[in-house]
Amino acid sequence: MNFELNKSIKILERTPAVFRALFQDLDCEWATINEGPKTWSAYDIIGHLIHGERTDWIPRAKIILGDNEDKTFKPFDRFAQETLSKGKSTNELLEEFTRLRQESLQQLKAWKLTDEDLNKKGVHPELGAVTLAQLLSTWTIHDLAHINQLSRVMVKHYANDVGPWKNYIRLLKDL
Amino acid sequence: MNFELNKSIKILERTPAVFRALFQDLDCEWATINEGPKTWSAYDIIGHLIHGERTDWIPRAKIILGDNEDKTFKPFDRFAQETLSKGKSTNELLEEFTRLRQESLQQLKAWKLTDEDLNKKGVHPELGAVTLAQLLSTWTIHDLAHINQLSRVMVKHYANDVGPWKNYIRLLKDL
Repeated sequence: MNFELNKSIKILERTPAVFRALFQDLDCEWATINEGPKTWSAYDIIGHLIHGERTDWIPRAKIILGDNEDKTFKPFDRFAQETLSKGKSTNELLEEFTRLRQESLQQLKAWKLTDEDLNKKGVHPELGAVTLAQLLSTWTIHDLAHINQLSRVMVKHYANDVGPWKNYIRLLKDL
Repeated sequence: MNFELNKSIKILERTPAVFRALFQDLDCEWATINEGPKTWSAYDIIGHLIHGERTDWIPRAKIILGDNEDKTFKPFDRFAQETLSKGKSTNELLEEFTRLRQESLQQLKAWKLTDEDLNKKGVHPELGAVTLAQLLSTWTIHDLAHINQLSRVMVKHYANDVGPWKNYIRLLKDL
């Protein structure tokens, strides 16, 4: 096992800056390109991360740590951003994500979680029993998995521009 | 074709900030984990990008744009960082990369490249004839492909910590 709370916090608190470094004040289409119909752009991903701050990670941790006997999480809506992001600019979403993530981390740190807390369990509506450590591990690499996704989308945007170098770039070889 | 010079510059000038956001002043192992023997960590990747600034992108563009009749590029050493990064901290490499990339972009902008320039050709030692536009496209997505790589490495670091969520994370499903 590699999970450590402090190691996770280091990533979680850096993710908004990574997204701002890539997309803030950008006047071209890198934030809105995707991999085709029903695939996600960076803009979609930021909206998805915002919804996660509001309804997924900290709310589920609260259920695990709280006194309520029913430990079942509410299902997470993976498509909420389709309506919730409407009319918002990428900069507005980046600001919202930055603020919400700061609030989430304030809460996470304020709990001063013990090993006993990290072993407490909740019930995922599809996956069944999960520990708080597993929830926090997933939160951490969920950020990184979406950075992985958006970088893949951006690489593919130039698939037909690199000429013979296509053979050297793993993500383009099979296109 | 999606390549535009200004669109590429937007990415190239942001990459050092993305790396700093992720790895500067980090007191845990996210920058040095890899996927096993002979695979690269973020630390290795930053060294590789530094060597690219020194010997690959701008030097090759100079060959394409220059007066010398022999347009053949020198082969790029993909493993130079194994010796060149020795003894340097991640912060030192980040600083070096940031400075070298700024210098590269100063040169790139100073050329005020025309469409005619972008169609000029050099000779890659393995791939044969390539245009300046293809070189600059490759430089751009080479950054992004390495962000893709390091985020993959970091996701896998928690492969055994996420419990049943493993099934929801594409990069972990097949591990």
